[in-house]
Amino acid sequence: MARKKKQAAGDAPPATSGAEAARRIVRVGQTVYEDILKRRKPSLRFPVRSLANVRYDLKRGHFEIRGRMATRTLTYNTVKTFAQSMRLLATTKADLLDKDDIAGKREIYYNSKSWGECRFDEQPESDSLLDDIEAMLGVNREQLGYIPEERGGEVAGHLRVVDRNPATREEVRIDCTRLGTGAWSIPSRVEHLRFESRAKFILVVETASLFQRLVHHRYYETAQCILVSMSGVPTRACRRFIRRLADDQALPVYVFTDGDPYGYCNIYRTLKVGSGQAAHINRFFCVPQARYLGVTPQDILDYKLEDATHPLEAADVKRAKDALKNDPFIRHHKEWQDALNQMLRMGVRVEQQAFAKHGLNFVLERYLPDKFRKKHFLP
Amino acid sequence: MARKKKQAAGDAPPATSGAEAARRIVRVGQTVYEDILKRRKPSLRFPVRSLANVRYDLKRGHFEIRGRMATRTLTYNTVKTFAQSMRLLATTKADLLDKDDIAGKREIYYNSKSWGECRFDEQPESDSLLDDIEAMLGVNREQLGYIPEERGGEVAGHLRVVDRNPATREEVRIDCTRLGTGAWSIPSRVEHLRFESRAKFILVVETASLFQRLVHHRYYETAQCILVSMSGVPTRACRRFIRRLADDQALPVYVFTDGDPYGYCNIYRTLKVGSGQAAHINRFFCVPQARYLGVTPQDILDYKLEDATHPLEAADVKRAKDALKNDPFIRHHKEWQDALNQMLRMGVRVEQQAFAKHGLNFVLERYLPDKFRKKHFLP
Repeated sequence: MARKKKQAAGDAPPATSGAEAARRIVRVGQTVYEDILKRRKPSLRFPVRSLANVRYDLKRGHFEIRGRMATRTLTYNTVKTFAQSMRLLATTKADLLDKDDIAGKREIYYNSKSWGECRFDEQPESDSLLDDIEAMLGVNREQLGYIPEERGGEVAGHLRVVDRNPATREEVRIDCTRLGTGAWSIPSRVEHLRFESRAKFILVVETASLFQRLVHHRYYETAQCILVSMSGVPTRACRRFIRRLADDQALPVYVFTDGDPYGYCNIYRTLKVGSGQAAHINRFFCVPQARYLGVTPQDILDYKLEDATHPLEAADVKRAKDALKNDPFIRHHKEWQDALNQMLRMGVRVEQQAFAKHGLNFVLERYLPDKFRKKHFLP
Repeated sequence: MARKKKQAAGDAPPATSGAEAARRIVRVGQTVYEDILKRRKPSLRFPVRSLANVRYDLKRGHFEIRGRMATRTLTYNTVKTFAQSMRLLATTKADLLDKDDIAGKREIYYNSKSWGECRFDEQPESDSLLDDIEAMLGVNREQLGYIPEERGGEVAGHLRVVDRNPATREEVRIDCTRLGTGAWSIPSRVEHLRFESRAKFILVVETASLFQRLVHHRYYETAQCILVSMSGVPTRACRRFIRRLADDQALPVYVFTDGDPYGYCNIYRTLKVGSGQAAHINRFFCVPQARYLGVTPQDILDYKLEDATHPLEAADVKRAKDALKNDPFIRHHKEWQDALNQMLRMGVRVEQQAFAKHGLNFVLERYLPDKFRKKHFLP
């Protein structure tokens, strides 16, 4: 089933090897060490992580960090944070990268309790420092061995994941058509995965319930595709998995969420272009090849779902208006402005399960084939 | 790897076949039909679903529903609900059981939009009626083809799940040692699964992060066990899966959560004996063979975790005191009262990741082996 690796569709930076990440850490340490030997005050330089230092990169299709840097120089006031930075870099190299081990942010916080004076008092301190280090080294922290607390994201369909036995490093092929009524749960870290697939596209769905229906009826055979369930706003692992898979196999990505401002502006927008707060790593996590399949406000009319909608709540209206005014992604795409304005005019939202009005399997027998035939997607 | 099916440890009611569930629905319909022919007012009888109609069944080890029944007779006032009950029974039989299809509660609500006058106006109406039907037929609704909106629960380790291809019904064996760094995601409905295992026990953990660590280091090989991740309070599918697996393979179940009142009184208690609100189906979902491994308040002292704890918050104290006063399960077990009182005296809670203080892998190299050697478990 293997096929030649195709040209990547995006311009994803290649995953940094553990060895390369370790070298970068050693270089930081050497600079500090040399500064000390030369009786200069050592300092660390981090990109500033804030919305003010972010721009929407149209070409690459995600929020990108600008060049502003902050410098942390070793002084009487910064001595504890400085020491913690060095200790965290050392732990990252010695306990994670060199040993090919993993750790959650919370585990690292607890681990610091044995660091004596440079222990962290509260987890937000270690979390923030870890974000700094991630930005400084120019890698996402998963590449350093850090794993998110949350898993999330499931896969079924025409895909073989080439993973490895973590202990023996022996290759393990997971055939995602051979998981029965279950699915393959995406691990917290996906950097090392390889893929083999003859699928034509990836269909990403919001709700676990719709995913289960598509798996139950083996929609991925009918449509020759790969199904991914996000269960709400996708986790980092889920986003990175979709991005790596789509790049590696040059596959289009279609996204199917509830038809409401949350589904458009939070779930889909985050998947496609990333979030403002994490601009320094969006380039690893965004999925620029994603296109929006539905449910659109127009679908409510086209599929006569009027009596299966819900009135927009105040929070929905606020979210839509905020996005129209402030979200650089929405402001760039006229189609999205039109869709949000249409929704505000209609005053209703619609869930992806609403198609059940016309029969439980209408969604896979009519709606999805319609969409793929007409190719009506939002950007 | 197959072995003879052992004597079930619990006294789980056998799963009702779809055909049997369909027959029960037909019997309900016949009774109503005959009543009408005899010009009697037809009526439906449901067990009363409320805490007042619940008792803690010590022998069976779960909350059990008492015998109080409510009768819904067809009158001018009940005509809509009565019609909805009949329509829901018909859909359950014709669209789900007869077709071996599945549906979420929300899909059924939307499906009702095509039922004309007996459509549901709000989803709580159809949810409540579905609970009535579940209680009336004496099966959990998963056996009727209804699936929860939420998936949740992942498995890795010494287990082969015998599932089937939902389309061809061909058997599919999922070897849960061959899933790389990922895991098998438990499907929404687990009634049809069969199991093959040589594991010695099931270890159920609260957090995805610890699960990932155990998988990464293939703890299930060291300990010859099956690992299940709950990610918080276990979903129905996850509870039912553990129960069916533990019964079928006669395996002990050990539960490892954060050491706080939520971990004890919500996560563990729910897994072991069920919840008050769902007493009519607890017998399908509880896991009476579960024992509590940790983290206990005594572990904080034994493993010198004092500086890796957090102060109890007001909500924690309230939860612990409520449980001591009102929870029949806690009130039955002196050991649990002692543990909660010790926690209240110490004034702190502890997370399962706190062991990282002594090294990232202390938890699997020292803590878990200690526990299994000393066999200090709470009931």
